[in-house]
Amino acid sequence: MVLELLENLGAPSPRNSRARGDDLADILIKDGYIITMDAQRRILERGSVAIEGDKITAVGKDVKERADTVIDARGKAVLPGLINAHTHLSMTLLRGVADDMPLMEWLETKIWPIEKNLTADDCYTGALLGCLEMIKSGTTCFADQYFYMEDVARAVEKAGLRGVLSRGIIELDDPKKRETTIREGERLVKTCHGKANGRILTMFGPHAAYTCSPECLMQVKELAKKYKVGIHVHISESQDEVDKIMKKYGKRPVEHLDSIGFLGSEVLAAHCVQLTEQEIKILHNRKVKPVHNPVSNMKIACGVAPVPEMLAAGIPVALGTDGAASNNSLDMFNEMKFAALLNKVHKLDPVAVPAQVALEMATINGAIALGLQDSIGSLEAGKKADIVLVDLQKPHLKPLHSVISHLVYSAVGSDVDTTIVDGKVLMQGRKVLTLDEDKVLMEAQESSDDFLARREGKK
Amino acid sequence: MVLELLENLGAPSPRNSRARGDDLADILIKDGYIITMDAQRRILERGSVAIEGDKITAVGKDVKERADTVIDARGKAVLPGLINAHTHLSMTLLRGVADDMPLMEWLETKIWPIEKNLTADDCYTGALLGCLEMIKSGTTCFADQYFYMEDVARAVEKAGLRGVLSRGIIELDDPKKRETTIREGERLVKTCHGKANGRILTMFGPHAAYTCSPECLMQVKELAKKYKVGIHVHISESQDEVDKIMKKYGKRPVEHLDSIGFLGSEVLAAHCVQLTEQEIKILHNRKVKPVHNPVSNMKIACGVAPVPEMLAAGIPVALGTDGAASNNSLDMFNEMKFAALLNKVHKLDPVAVPAQVALEMATINGAIALGLQDSIGSLEAGKKADIVLVDLQKPHLKPLHSVISHLVYSAVGSDVDTTIVDGKVLMQGRKVLTLDEDKVLMEAQESSDDFLARREGKK
Repeated sequence: MVLELLENLGAPSPRNSRARGDDLADILIKDGYIITMDAQRRILERGSVAIEGDKITAVGKDVKERADTVIDARGKAVLPGLINAHTHLSMTLLRGVADDMPLMEWLETKIWPIEKNLTADDCYTGALLGCLEMIKSGTTCFADQYFYMEDVARAVEKAGLRGVLSRGIIELDDPKKRETTIREGERLVKTCHGKANGRILTMFGPHAAYTCSPECLMQVKELAKKYKVGIHVHISESQDEVDKIMKKYGKRPVEHLDSIGFLGSEVLAAHCVQLTEQEIKILHNRKVKPVHNPVSNMKIACGVAPVPEMLAAGIPVALGTDGAASNNSLDMFNEMKFAALLNKVHKLDPVAVPAQVALEMATINGAIALGLQDSIGSLEAGKKADIVLVDLQKPHLKPLHSVISHLVYSAVGSDVDTTIVDGKVLMQGRKVLTLDEDKVLMEAQESSDDFLARREGKK
Repeated sequence: MVLELLENLGAPSPRNSRARGDDLADILIKDGYIITMDAQRRILERGSVAIEGDKITAVGKDVKERADTVIDARGKAVLPGLINAHTHLSMTLLRGVADDMPLMEWLETKIWPIEKNLTADDCYTGALLGCLEMIKSGTTCFADQYFYMEDVARAVEKAGLRGVLSRGIIELDDPKKRETTIREGERLVKTCHGKANGRILTMFGPHAAYTCSPECLMQVKELAKKYKVGIHVHISESQDEVDKIMKKYGKRPVEHLDSIGFLGSEVLAAHCVQLTEQEIKILHNRKVKPVHNPVSNMKIACGVAPVPEMLAAGIPVALGTDGAASNNSLDMFNEMKFAALLNKVHKLDPVAVPAQVALEMATINGAIALGLQDSIGSLEAGKKADIVLVDLQKPHLKPLHSVISHLVYSAVGSDVDTTIVDGKVLMQGRKVLTLDEDKVLMEAQESSDDFLARREGKK
């Protein structure tokens, strides 16, 4: 659905738009452990991936292509760029500002007062920091919901990542707030969808059923249909949310959202922690796309999402970090380990969410959740070249017997050596090529010092 | 208790044994965020630590000492080296060999058959790999229980780490096995305790109440008393273990061990997952030292230890990674994050095990658990110079508002820049000075390839 609009936009690929005198590939990644995540989940030892323009042109053990740039992948895993299917990028600026507090106290005394003071510049700075962190930890695509999203889009365009951006729509019984945030959400879709060779896509972002009325949600649903984009929403994050919805509508959140006709295949549903069997059936029937956020759910102590049950029902659960204020990291390798281990201990079942499944959640399932399964999420000819190389020559990744096990249980973001998005190398040998790292770090510190001082009335 | 014997051994410190012409410190760590973990848990911004020989001589904001070597710690956190209070070091060689399996199948079809094939050389090689991983992730001291422990001691001596080593004693209704393993355990204590300027200490290591008879356990207890060393044991790791002990002795594990007189302040008790309130009381009364192993407990799906309850009872719970086969990492930063988050979600309490407490578990509580609280676990004048520096100039550690939050929720082992043990720099700028990193990685791969081939009868 998102792609359809993208096709309509007719964004040209760099490859198609330039003349070539020969049939050289642009980039050839050679002799790595290729984790394809294709339908057969093939792993190729000493395999290669060829890239032309923004696309993968060949994947295999016998890729004969020559290339302008050859990347030696010996001793490295080559995998689809990880997909962070739910985050709030600019909240990197709130990392470590408040931890170890009850949810409502955390929101009311810390997060919300700070957010009231955030400026467009702050959000741009925070988004740049988040992009830098993602590039350095192997995430190539993410789904974001926050505000000042045109500024976030600027940061994503500059960094070179792929992002699916949505303006958070919050009503809270205030019709004016509803109209303002919906209007800003619509403007984002109109101005940014398909930008940067299609790297920047958009969704509508109604916050949740307890902050948006049924009328607001259905108004958003119609707009999403009109613009042929998805909807990014929080569903059933906490028991408190379930209680609120039960009290107001006499139904549980998923039942309520289904009864008003909101649910559908375009709905990206963060959290999905507190679900009944019946609600899992509804999510499956409506083809909703749940995103598991284990670290945030653990830190805020919301509970454990029924991931094995959703997977068993045939729902392709995706994975996300949530914002850095409740994680406090955007490292998807860390998140995979948590996803695999939390569900094992919760079910007292060491077979629950094996390493292979955790990696699927962070790659192909993320692509499906964002409606981008035809263009990202696996290494296959014809897909976009969103690829990361993980350096396996580390003490914590030795000895090597199962690459998948190491990627999920032993690797961390900083093991990523090379990050490629849309055929462009964003980082190589851990050096980021699109951003001035020191400048991004310095400005993030200045920006957060500044808004904390403003909040305390010191400025 | 352990220290007492060490004093008796009269191991000279390098400082005392060499002539000095002036009062220069050997090393001055300058202008860092000093996380003292002293009784007041002081954090000094732009503070310094002076080291002479193997000891810290000064910690403060106004340390005036000059030094042979000055380490610039601007933008770095300076903290006590982390203490991994329960691991099986040589099992790094089994990392990723088998995952996502039920416990007994995992042990019976994978781990035990492989262990039968392990040689002394394998264990040395695996221990070197584990030491390298620990140096690179900021662990300076660890408690180990495995076999071929004299070979492990050689690796620890070479690497420069501090280790408390024990030979695993297993009986399994075989009196010969009991005598052999006890004899090897005693030999380890006699030959290795206090070696390498006291960096290498020992304990007795009876495996568990379900693998050792009461007679075996009490024989070990007497020997530990004779040699004035501690006892490293597994207690109540799984429900299966509780069931076995209940069936055999009509009591739960802690009650059983108490009834035979085994428990005492010298007992380092790994796991302690399945405990009743009454058992927590017994552990507290007997001054037993429990070690929390969240990642391993999650991966093998054993359950969640009652850490908040033990802490509330006044028990200084320590932290450990367990072996790399069930983790699959020795990264204590990772372990701290898991400890903080697992206990929050398990209690549905976002205040359970705050960041500060997780860091205490990995430092001063680890020291107490090993009976080494007078010499390690905090940065204070007179203690051993076991110190790590964490580079905070990373995207995932910005902005900086709470160093403790960042160390627990955002940092990973590879953020460690410098590791110092016993006053000696083992790693600086991530370059390990005591080991040839490439050689250790290569030999670990060769060794594990070799024993897997032997097991499959290919060799």
